[in-house]
Amino acid sequence: MTASQFFDLPSPYILRRGGMLEGARLCFETWGTLNADASNALLIFTGLSPSAHAASSAKNPDQGWWESMLGPHQAIDSQRFFVICVNSLGSCKGSTGPASINPATGQVYAMDYPELTLEDVAESTRPLLEHLGIAHLKALIGPSMGGMTAMAFAAMFPGITANLLLISTAPYSLPFATAIRSLQREAIRHDPHWDHGRYAADRWPEQGFRIARKLGMISYRSPAEWRDRFGRKRINLRPEIAFEREFEVEAYLDAHADRFVGSFDPNCYLYLSRAMDWFDLSDHGGAVEIALATMHARRALVIGVTTDILFPIEQQREIAEGLRNAGTVVDYYPLPSIQGHDSFLVDFERFAPLVADFLGCL
Amino acid sequence: MTASQFFDLPSPYILRRGGMLEGARLCFETWGTLNADASNALLIFTGLSPSAHAASSAKNPDQGWWESMLGPHQAIDSQRFFVICVNSLGSCKGSTGPASINPATGQVYAMDYPELTLEDVAESTRPLLEHLGIAHLKALIGPSMGGMTAMAFAAMFPGITANLLLISTAPYSLPFATAIRSLQREAIRHDPHWDHGRYAADRWPEQGFRIARKLGMISYRSPAEWRDRFGRKRINLRPEIAFEREFEVEAYLDAHADRFVGSFDPNCYLYLSRAMDWFDLSDHGGAVEIALATMHARRALVIGVTTDILFPIEQQREIAEGLRNAGTVVDYYPLPSIQGHDSFLVDFERFAPLVADFLGCL
Repeated sequence: MTASQFFDLPSPYILRRGGMLEGARLCFETWGTLNADASNALLIFTGLSPSAHAASSAKNPDQGWWESMLGPHQAIDSQRFFVICVNSLGSCKGSTGPASINPATGQVYAMDYPELTLEDVAESTRPLLEHLGIAHLKALIGPSMGGMTAMAFAAMFPGITANLLLISTAPYSLPFATAIRSLQREAIRHDPHWDHGRYAADRWPEQGFRIARKLGMISYRSPAEWRDRFGRKRINLRPEIAFEREFEVEAYLDAHADRFVGSFDPNCYLYLSRAMDWFDLSDHGGAVEIALATMHARRALVIGVTTDILFPIEQQREIAEGLRNAGTVVDYYPLPSIQGHDSFLVDFERFAPLVADFLGCL
Repeated sequence: MTASQFFDLPSPYILRRGGMLEGARLCFETWGTLNADASNALLIFTGLSPSAHAASSAKNPDQGWWESMLGPHQAIDSQRFFVICVNSLGSCKGSTGPASINPATGQVYAMDYPELTLEDVAESTRPLLEHLGIAHLKALIGPSMGGMTAMAFAAMFPGITANLLLISTAPYSLPFATAIRSLQREAIRHDPHWDHGRYAADRWPEQGFRIARKLGMISYRSPAEWRDRFGRKRINLRPEIAFEREFEVEAYLDAHADRFVGSFDPNCYLYLSRAMDWFDLSDHGGAVEIALATMHARRALVIGVTTDILFPIEQQREIAEGLRNAGTVVDYYPLPSIQGHDSFLVDFERFAPLVADFLGCL
């Protein structure tokens, strides 16, 4: 069962850095019903790897990646709002990305996919909204990379939304985050199976992708969480093969790599990861403050987590202050969640009430 | 020119986990002169990768890794003290390690090197001290891994030193540090050139080692330093090869990898890295506090850095409090240096006066 819907982008579809896609499409899902004057629409942009399946529905009862946040009578209430979640252009979960077939060659795009920015990811949803009859959003919601995409969207289309929910996100990538992402891409690209992106289905750059994912997990959680959760617990006091895993934290990273490696395409990962490093909100007007003012947002909810090492709390504060200086009414919450960057995916006790309260007042 | 001296360990030399070395030796350097009653000796244990060449001398005028800290009238004053720095057993800078020739086979040990602990690294210096006529140290000095080794030494040989200088170190590895080190080892071990440790001289696991080193640098410095130093500065606005480096922070990591890869042996890295993860001071008596009390230290200088993500400041505080509870007079300094774990190698303005003051009172 699937709740996936597809929307054909105008063809050719021109990207910001000059490239072009033919016959490209977006995959999306919706929850709730659009009201008569199309004034109750919420749009969710996702982080790097999630699909459009943010929550279960009658058409697809599988748990979504934001299951506890979205649905009837949840914080993002599908009884009240018409909620759209889009799989990012460039991803591999239904939207056209480097793992899709290039109609010009009949093969997957791989590195022939054009250069992709988060502005492209954002802008590609504009014709979809028009198609759905939505001229204005009630609110735009973005966690992590999705928050960058949301800010790009709001800066490119001032007034498209009066309300912003920006969660554990950043106005630009800092060098520590870029260093981590660059190293993840290096691990993938230097896997001998990567083969300049032309890996066969039975010969994936799996080892490099495992390292990329594990490095991701190291940056997504927090040292404090792992100290409490794993301490020095061992799974193996003396492995038969020297240097095999011994500590529980190593088994945890292996389990995450196992789950991820079969479910995401390495080339798509490269493109979206690079797009995050390229992202700089100051490209929209010359300075972050100018870009934030351009959005003409009435209200904003800005949430960050003090243990986040990838999108540090100073970056959410910078967004909150910039919006406030521009006249937006901002609710800013630096939360003490212990799960680092991933808190928005797990610490619903803290996050859900804030989202519910904010949307409840709209 | 070399200032390296060599000391033959008793043969066979038995390691803690049951292995054995034949014809093993330690490489060390000394500065200053041992006084008549052999009461002015300082012993320095190093971090994971440095050699025994901590500072220049008449015999080797090359700059050492702690050049600004050690020498005549420096914080560690070689006019007053007889200073010994030892290349760790298991390293590749003169002491016997996995890159040394195994006399039993005539080939390098590689993975045939026995399991190595920091207790072995510590204990191996005992016969050297005896050979030099030193029964008691004036002080034992250890930054980073060297601090772990120093604590192991002091716990194994209570009373061997009345004074401890423990810098940016930890009583055990926390899971965040273990995750990083485990991933570094994985990158080396899964490089196709690694070949179970039997790489040829012209076919090193260079790419995996580069990733390990870059991940090391990410953990050795701090996000705040890189924010100030690199920001979003670029070296290349549009590289000819897609996904090649664009940001200055990427060039910085490349430069560090370039320098390191030819100068350290990957198998030695594996052994010493694992030894750090294994290290747990509580192995000496059942609890960290017990082990610290066992040392019978009179005075201790404990320095940490608040931006250190690999050896976080809580771990230095734990050492300081444990020693204090055991009756040691402790000077504890949590420094606001911005260079993270590496601060002790670069922020001499902060570190040198503290070390000088402490040693000056002995």
